[in-house]
Amino acid sequence: MATARETFRVPSGPVDLSAIDPRGRPIGPRDKADAALEMENLGARLDIRQEALFAEGTSGGRRAVLLVLQGMDTSGKGGTIRNVLGLVNPQGVHIASFKRPTEEERAHDFLWRIRRHVPEPGRIGVFDRSHYEDVLVARVEGLVPEEVWRARYAAIADFERELSGRGVTVLKCMLHISPEEQAQRLLARLDDPQKRWKYDPGDIDSREEWPAYQEAYAAAMQHCDSDAAPWYVVPADRKWYRNWAVAALLAETLDDVAPQFPPPGYDVDAERARLKRSSGIR
Amino acid sequence: MATARETFRVPSGPVDLSAIDPRGRPIGPRDKADAALEMENLGARLDIRQEALFAEGTSGGRRAVLLVLQGMDTSGKGGTIRNVLGLVNPQGVHIASFKRPTEEERAHDFLWRIRRHVPEPGRIGVFDRSHYEDVLVARVEGLVPEEVWRARYAAIADFERELSGRGVTVLKCMLHISPEEQAQRLLARLDDPQKRWKYDPGDIDSREEWPAYQEAYAAAMQHCDSDAAPWYVVPADRKWYRNWAVAALLAETLDDVAPQFPPPGYDVDAERARLKRSSGIR
Repeated sequence: MATARETFRVPSGPVDLSAIDPRGRPIGPRDKADAALEMENLGARLDIRQEALFAEGTSGGRRAVLLVLQGMDTSGKGGTIRNVLGLVNPQGVHIASFKRPTEEERAHDFLWRIRRHVPEPGRIGVFDRSHYEDVLVARVEGLVPEEVWRARYAAIADFERELSGRGVTVLKCMLHISPEEQAQRLLARLDDPQKRWKYDPGDIDSREEWPAYQEAYAAAMQHCDSDAAPWYVVPADRKWYRNWAVAALLAETLDDVAPQFPPPGYDVDAERARLKRSSGIR
Repeated sequence: MATARETFRVPSGPVDLSAIDPRGRPIGPRDKADAALEMENLGARLDIRQEALFAEGTSGGRRAVLLVLQGMDTSGKGGTIRNVLGLVNPQGVHIASFKRPTEEERAHDFLWRIRRHVPEPGRIGVFDRSHYEDVLVARVEGLVPEEVWRARYAAIADFERELSGRGVTVLKCMLHISPEEQAQRLLARLDDPQKRWKYDPGDIDSREEWPAYQEAYAAAMQHCDSDAAPWYVVPADRKWYRNWAVAALLAETLDDVAPQFPPPGYDVDAERARLKRSSGIR
């Protein structure tokens, strides 16, 4: 079977999102029950890798992993975090959500607020939206002139190369949903009093710019995909498939990072002896 | 059945920790299988409360919850976070681990580094060690003169009253283990190459001050227990019981907070109509 990274990697060259089926299941589980079983295995794999990464970080290791999640409203960024990152120790995860920038944030370079949330050594960082908003919403809504957002592609590529050089392995997932599925999910939010807080009238405004957003995503992925910071397009109309795919991408990435439990910085036998001598306490 | 909060609340007046059995199971599950079932129910309860708290926070609510975890080395602070906070959406949780203070931190008041991690509105904050270290290790190891650590009890009580006034509900758990159980756990860390990174030779030094630490814990709890920021002593020799007890304490606390999903700030029917008009898109 092809790996998740091979399967979901954005094609090189111009990206045609309409050629990728949001309900596709090119590899992996065929149904929800299948996916649940596979998630157990992935959970165990993620778990041990995360712990080793964390352990490495406590003894001078500099490596970290950064998972960037992007997608249209209701594409499931929050659900992915809950279901995929919920599989590992929350202590090793740093989640940052980037909303509409504050006045202070807007007064700085667009990467300023992003840099503050780059994961520390040993951590898995997760961005719920990211610096890509500055070439997505900024482009579609014309928040800045074209020469400004256009120059950001190179700035982002530089930034991500810098992260990679510092030992931060970056992977980026676009959660790819169809407008039909989005309509269903928005409606569900309106219908359920416990979900209404998640709905924002602005979601419809973005929805009406659907083709422009797809174009902006395609351009961002084309300009900022690299082996050091790859872009993946994850079919996201089925929640269980989306969760499985992101978990698989993260697991394969961590397998590659292959973090190592550090050797002890003390003499194990001597400590055993000290412990034994102390055991009479109380 | 008595509630967890009634059962585990530190007795008022002078605290005698030796009178509390670290293997005790005064209420709740009798064995691991029982506990696993109860944890499922608690998980569902915590989950919905956490989501409502988060939702409240997105629409101007100011409330948050802060769970403080303290205990001797190996008492299971990390394991509790993993097993209890692992039950809720990681996006709604802010975990802060307080290690030996850095030089910058030592240059400030002892509460300076703590204040930076008070949970934002809508969040469940978790402290893995806390400001209590400044009346525990600081007292036992004589890091500061007695008049300094002694004055901190009042400073802590003031700080926690301030939090409560701001809408942050505080609960504090001492994970109570026996020195015999600690010896087993330290030995397990030395024996397993994947656990050696968790062992620190300084753990034995603290272990040798066991009675002084118990006394320092007792004093801290006596001075800083209040209805606004109660201290609980959780029997922690059995990991499954400890997890259950902390989950139950957190669930009861959240039941009391009773966060509410906010009413929508828009006209639901009008939005349904907008959504319908937009649905032809693509």
